[in-house]
Amino acid sequence: MSSSTAAELIARRQRALGASYRLFYEEPFAPVRGEGVWLYDKNNAAYLDAYNNVASIGHCHPAVVAAISEQSALLNTHTRYLHPSIVEYAEDLLSEFPPQLDNMTMTCTGSEANDLALRIARCHSGGTGIIVTRWAYHGVTSALAEVSPSLATGLPTASHVRLVEAPDSYRRTADFVASVKAAVQDMQAQGIKPAALLVDSIFSSDGVFSPANGELAAAAQCVRDAGGLYIADEVQPGFGRTGGQRWGFARESVIPDLVTLGKPMGNGHPVAAVVGRSALFDQFGHQQRYFNTYGGNPVSCKAAHAVLRVLREENLQANARDVGSYLKEGLRKLAERHEVIGDVRGEGLFIGVELVADRETQAPATVAAAAVVNGMRRRQVLISSTGPMANILKIRPPLVFARKHADLLVERLDATLNDLR
Amino acid sequence: MSSSTAAELIARRQRALGASYRLFYEEPFAPVRGEGVWLYDKNNAAYLDAYNNVASIGHCHPAVVAAISEQSALLNTHTRYLHPSIVEYAEDLLSEFPPQLDNMTMTCTGSEANDLALRIARCHSGGTGIIVTRWAYHGVTSALAEVSPSLATGLPTASHVRLVEAPDSYRRTADFVASVKAAVQDMQAQGIKPAALLVDSIFSSDGVFSPANGELAAAAQCVRDAGGLYIADEVQPGFGRTGGQRWGFARESVIPDLVTLGKPMGNGHPVAAVVGRSALFDQFGHQQRYFNTYGGNPVSCKAAHAVLRVLREENLQANARDVGSYLKEGLRKLAERHEVIGDVRGEGLFIGVELVADRETQAPATVAAAAVVNGMRRRQVLISSTGPMANILKIRPPLVFARKHADLLVERLDATLNDLR
Repeated sequence: MSSSTAAELIARRQRALGASYRLFYEEPFAPVRGEGVWLYDKNNAAYLDAYNNVASIGHCHPAVVAAISEQSALLNTHTRYLHPSIVEYAEDLLSEFPPQLDNMTMTCTGSEANDLALRIARCHSGGTGIIVTRWAYHGVTSALAEVSPSLATGLPTASHVRLVEAPDSYRRTADFVASVKAAVQDMQAQGIKPAALLVDSIFSSDGVFSPANGELAAAAQCVRDAGGLYIADEVQPGFGRTGGQRWGFARESVIPDLVTLGKPMGNGHPVAAVVGRSALFDQFGHQQRYFNTYGGNPVSCKAAHAVLRVLREENLQANARDVGSYLKEGLRKLAERHEVIGDVRGEGLFIGVELVADRETQAPATVAAAAVVNGMRRRQVLISSTGPMANILKIRPPLVFARKHADLLVERLDATLNDLR
Repeated sequence: MSSSTAAELIARRQRALGASYRLFYEEPFAPVRGEGVWLYDKNNAAYLDAYNNVASIGHCHPAVVAAISEQSALLNTHTRYLHPSIVEYAEDLLSEFPPQLDNMTMTCTGSEANDLALRIARCHSGGTGIIVTRWAYHGVTSALAEVSPSLATGLPTASHVRLVEAPDSYRRTADFVASVKAAVQDMQAQGIKPAALLVDSIFSSDGVFSPANGELAAAAQCVRDAGGLYIADEVQPGFGRTGGQRWGFARESVIPDLVTLGKPMGNGHPVAAVVGRSALFDQFGHQQRYFNTYGGNPVSCKAAHAVLRVLREENLQANARDVGSYLKEGLRKLAERHEVIGDVRGEGLFIGVELVADRETQAPATVAAAAVVNGMRRRQVLISSTGPMANILKIRPPLVFARKHADLLVERLDATLNDLR
């Protein structure tokens, strides 16, 4: 796209879509085609995608395209009719979970899944209190905006929400478990019954953290003792991304009461779900009617099933572990030459690279991070940043990312960091 | 499907999906294929679809299948990159609205659209109060369950929600406008600031009502005078279904502040939107970050654009008006011979047939309605029922429904009603 055409399209976009619609990068990127880990612009220039976790099994994977095309031409209707696709998918998906998690409800988005999980937790506990991390993001609905402080709405935190510290392995300024305990006690002191601890198992928006052994279990126990549920938000870490396990929560022995799934589930097709203990779904289902018009339609189920099969057939979880370790190694070598890299962390192919102005004080290098993200885009590698100070590079490529792609990313990051000096 | 196979699939479904998942009809229907107004079971028996408003331009319309297939193979990503599909669709869709409604935000479901509309209304008004009809349904999120009394959750109505009477043209037991005025006054007396009047323009779940000239305008004015917005929920009546106009709200001269769209928008593909005044989106967008991962992706935009084009090219709104009138005529003739039909009403191809045990007392014939719905299913015509007593037959076919299909429906309804005697 010529820059005048791009400018014109941006102006039209702003007119029709308004202020909520923001674009990445100083120079917005306009892909026209995707394949595997590559996105192409209209001049057929290839951009290495190290950011998009939705197209998790690779952009435009033929198995998903075929599933969607075939089923769309055959039948697309709702779950008040009987169709094998949702049953077959549910059984297959549930086989990926501990046997206690034996039920699934399908929605269209991770937001709908998290919102439903809160409804189930409030129904079960009879309470309203929700505990989330200080810079959490859980979705776009009214109920989820309340528990998504990273939206920075400027609104006061709702009285039934408590913010706790993420298990920050780099700064170690706070204790996640102690923070959860204090939140529960504070709620109870104010007469608020805890309904749930809701955590993203890789703490994506807080800055990409992997809790140390036992932290999630201890926090979950504390909330359960107070009558609440432990909800694992797997919208980001789920479906093998963390490499060592299918679901982020499985790094620890504790089994969540509810697990929410989204982004990579349909490789871009809008499909999501809540998985959990059937007793909880039954309790909720007998009290309240829940019907999601598009949720679990045959096209969505076939798309999601294709994703699950590819994940297994192409061994993408093992690839995430292997290439993720390899990439982290490469990034840590870069850190030897670039003082601005304070920390390299993450699991599998969800990696955070924290940039700091000073390794002693750990002062966040927010401006540098923005410069790196834009510099990488100019070098045709797509990444972004995360964390409260947006100083942590977020590297989260499709799971078909290979070692050669990791090499390319490290090489271009090296050049970009050299430009900073 | 043999009945043993069906029973087995139902048992597996209950095991994996639990209590929330309910099936229509005494003998559940298992379609395997759809085309136009027809759904086919595995024995290739054809069922006339007079119920599904999602597949609005006809099941598996080739233009939508082609749009989805082609774009899925090319690129499916989010709106933080620049892509013409959302801009082109937004401009074309907005051309279908009064010029004051000049912005659009895309979501994946009507629930997400209604939930976002509430967030925008609360942001604009600084209030929390929401007014809905007594048997309203607006969606599945936490915030929408509060304003969807038809879910019959058994939970007390939230303190910031007021229920008003629908403009019931048959029973005429209550005055919609007076009811809205009283709700506003009651809120204000209790220190609750009204944020919005949220109404389905065809009052689908209340029982299918068309407000008399001026009723919506007067109710909207009353809420606006108190600082709230008028939100038209067009998830059911929108996109030409009501025949006389593209949007249900346009039966009256009043223009809503926000309009929510869903179900038929992608003919089954999960896509939805909020359309409204740009000043409202700007105010919200500057205060709060809103990003919907799948919302407005190129596949969804291409699917929705194909639907809009087919709606115009095949003159489906005019067809809805013509066939809707013709069908109502046929149903009214049936009423001459079947005492159980108390009222035939609706707009275009959204028709309600109210069954009563006694025309004088207007006592709802709930059991008869269930018998008719199941009897029609045995005669291979799909309809359902609505209203607080579920005694109103809900007839809401794809918009490609022709006069010959109306004839078939009337003929089989006649036979089914004869069986009741």
